[in-house]
Amino acid sequence: MNNAGSESQSEKDRSRPIGIFDSGVGGLTVYRALHDRLPNERFIYLGDTARVPYGTKSLATVERYALENSAFLASLGIKMLVVACNTASALALPSIREKIGLDVVGVIGPGGRRAVEVTTDEPAPRIGVIATEATVSSNAYKEAIRRASERAAILQSGCPLFVPLAEEGWTHEPETYSIARRYLADMKEFAPHALVLGCTHYPILRDVIAETLGESVKLIDSGIATADEVADLLREKGMANPNTIAGERRLCDDLDNFYVTDAAERFARVAERFLGVQPSKLEAIEVYGADEVKSENVEG
Amino acid sequence: MNNAGSESQSEKDRSRPIGIFDSGVGGLTVYRALHDRLPNERFIYLGDTARVPYGTKSLATVERYALENSAFLASLGIKMLVVACNTASALALPSIREKIGLDVVGVIGPGGRRAVEVTTDEPAPRIGVIATEATVSSNAYKEAIRRASERAAILQSGCPLFVPLAEEGWTHEPETYSIARRYLADMKEFAPHALVLGCTHYPILRDVIAETLGESVKLIDSGIATADEVADLLREKGMANPNTIAGERRLCDDLDNFYVTDAAERFARVAERFLGVQPSKLEAIEVYGADEVKSENVEG
Repeated sequence: MNNAGSESQSEKDRSRPIGIFDSGVGGLTVYRALHDRLPNERFIYLGDTARVPYGTKSLATVERYALENSAFLASLGIKMLVVACNTASALALPSIREKIGLDVVGVIGPGGRRAVEVTTDEPAPRIGVIATEATVSSNAYKEAIRRASERAAILQSGCPLFVPLAEEGWTHEPETYSIARRYLADMKEFAPHALVLGCTHYPILRDVIAETLGESVKLIDSGIATADEVADLLREKGMANPNTIAGERRLCDDLDNFYVTDAAERFARVAERFLGVQPSKLEAIEVYGADEVKSENVEG
Repeated sequence: MNNAGSESQSEKDRSRPIGIFDSGVGGLTVYRALHDRLPNERFIYLGDTARVPYGTKSLATVERYALENSAFLASLGIKMLVVACNTASALALPSIREKIGLDVVGVIGPGGRRAVEVTTDEPAPRIGVIATEATVSSNAYKEAIRRASERAAILQSGCPLFVPLAEEGWTHEPETYSIARRYLADMKEFAPHALVLGCTHYPILRDVIAETLGESVKLIDSGIATADEVADLLREKGMANPNTIAGERRLCDDLDNFYVTDAAERFARVAERFLGVQPSKLEAIEVYGADEVKSENVEG
């Protein structure tokens, strides 16, 4: 607990919203976790739908996109930034921290640490990670887990079709189960004690993954682990919103703002599939060129 | 046959390469068709891998990307432009034609006309179209078919998972057959005489689609129809390469140049999956800002 920090924050600073960005709709699972964990905070979500997906793009490109997104959110006066996108968390966190003068939380560190926490009682812990090709190749989860535990055995596996299956809404179709069995065959043999869902879309396929690997495997939703760390950080830094938000919060209510860089209509449709509700405040904007932000189009 | 045109073209103009662009790797099926049909021509292919896919993006965004790609290829001195991307052909052809002073051929007109041609003998022709969500919503194929035939019955259907399945290389997996049966159930009932493969990736799944709908359905590869129309146009305008290319041409040989806007390594890997060979000349470049083109990185 840092009381000095607490005192140095003005009430105005602390009442600012928390920024979240993702390459597209997937980060809505992280938004949901943050919203559930921190009902007294407001959020601004940016989905970079004009340039989604990040998972098949290069380091330089992901870094550039991530910096532009961060600069856009910073320009709106957020008090803290959550990088909900696993690929951007894996590749661009140091650059973002260097560029914007705010606390920045990614999803990989919290997800990796949580997997170690829930397996500490095992004499020989085994931790699995499933993610996009880019996140797997980056070894970011592997390194995060290794930093928290020297003894855990780690197996990573890419599941490229899980993202389009989740966006298509095929959460319980037989084809999805069949594809999961194929992708997770080695993982099942590895028999992990915990499995990190290392892509924001994967919690949408939680049932399929749990059934494929067996109910005893602890599934780690990086978004939930991240929300817990954000809650800790707000408390430590004395940054929690000092004004009580009255009434019951609902996901996507009008206290939270949503921005996309393209195709707001499709975003709203997939958001409803993921969260059961469409954002009440959704706007399409441009983030190109980082600092000059141009508003294009407003949708309800 | 336009002899005036023929005479007005200098030998230097006619020996220029033909430009092709696509949102990513899918257009390689169009490149293959052009290469097979026109062995005496050289090609420059641009895959906009930094911004793929186009199929879920808005008209304004697809138009901007398409113009930037076209300007890049025009700056390399091409004699003709083929828009291999169905989404860009559906949404951006008029803007591209207005902007660059070259003949521009899209894939939708040729694909639609070919479907009408092969069904003219039917008393009541039925034509199916499968494509991405954006291409289906644009109704571009429907309109192209309608322009060529007033009497054809038309059914369109979106098959979003076909693109990731093709890129994953799952061309004959049981899950792919099962997904095809689900997507094509209405189409099978419609029993088309011809089916337009209205997305550049779909020829990769030709076997699955043929088996699902039955071998009697004529599958129209828009890339092949486009290559035939490009050959006609070259002849009509007297634009064919006047210098005979000696020796046997191979796909992706060093007479053809390939550019991507990102992740050249992944492009090369999927290219090998699609064509059986990797491009010998592949370079990663930036096309942002249309006219200023910056070379970033060369790969072999």
